[in-house]
Amino acid sequence: MSDLIAQRIAFIKEADKLKTIIRRTQLMDGSRYENTAEHCWHVALMALTLIEYAPVQLDLPHVVRMLLVHDLVEIDAGDTFAFDAKGHETKEAREQAAADRLFGLLPEPDGLALRSLWEEFEASETPEARYALAMDRLEPLLSNISNAGGSWREHQIDNAAILRRMDPIRTGAPGLWPYVLTAIEATMGT
Amino acid sequence: MSDLIAQRIAFIKEADKLKTIIRRTQLMDGSRYENTAEHCWHVALMALTLIEYAPVQLDLPHVVRMLLVHDLVEIDAGDTFAFDAKGHETKEAREQAAADRLFGLLPEPDGLALRSLWEEFEASETPEARYALAMDRLEPLLSNISNAGGSWREHQIDNAAILRRMDPIRTGAPGLWPYVLTAIEATMGT
Repeated sequence: MSDLIAQRIAFIKEADKLKTIIRRTQLMDGSRYENTAEHCWHVALMALTLIEYAPVQLDLPHVVRMLLVHDLVEIDAGDTFAFDAKGHETKEAREQAAADRLFGLLPEPDGLALRSLWEEFEASETPEARYALAMDRLEPLLSNISNAGGSWREHQIDNAAILRRMDPIRTGAPGLWPYVLTAIEATMGT
Repeated sequence: MSDLIAQRIAFIKEADKLKTIIRRTQLMDGSRYENTAEHCWHVALMALTLIEYAPVQLDLPHVVRMLLVHDLVEIDAGDTFAFDAKGHETKEAREQAAADRLFGLLPEPDGLALRSLWEEFEASETPEARYALAMDRLEPLLSNISNAGGSWREHQIDNAAILRRMDPIRTGAPGLWPYVLTAIEATMGT
């Protein structure tokens, strides 16, 4: 087997572990908590479905690629809960180390290309990254409104904190913002 | 909420059910069986990683879109095990009905666009569909070789049947075929 194939297969096998990283949000039927791999599939599908609500014309394939790799670092760094202030203090260092290891499994040009997608997502400066982040925030909202408040109620998150967390949808997919406000109010009250 | 947003959100919520469809292949660590949503994420990531092994230059974004939707019909039709001859007799009718319902949740142009991706995958005639199918076949192989034969041994599938099942890799991603042959032999013997 060529070294290049061996490296790529090793990366693909390692990526399988993302299926074992458990998030704080439940499936929409409330049957169990969601894992990060299936979350990544869902947000990529959402990006295809909701592109009309982006504020400007986007490179959609770039968004989809970004969403496919945006959480890979959780294999080593774990999922840091949105409302966990202490976890967020160490999140960046943990995720940088994870990125070094995981993208480093690939042949160097491949690894750099995927890492740059992850870095673009994290920086949240391009319209593509902002729309991708909007999808990443909308998916748990859909879970929580399907589960009578879900992780918001479970962790007693108030509406002001929810709105701050959802704010990237206002800028990244503004066409969806009225829906988001209505959905939060219907689930959590005013 | 506009009707268009309502339809798109209804589709996205319905798609969540793909996370509850269980396949016959295990996670690579053997901890549980895989679901179809996380499988779809994995094959899309593989398509990004292994494009060098396609036989011709491909529209990779098209491949990725195809892989994101290729198994959605399993929400209604279930996962038909690769080696279940009886299940395959009714697979097409079950999946066509599922496609009618699921893609029909979307505004018509959106639904037709996604359905045409699914139909292209099923027909397996374009180079993009053939490469996508190669990814779809390679992922369970990686699971089975990581689990001492996995579903192949569990269901007593012989090497000839495995090779027939894997044959789309030979044409869809020929650069990986020598790896596939070696991997099957190392796991299942000659």
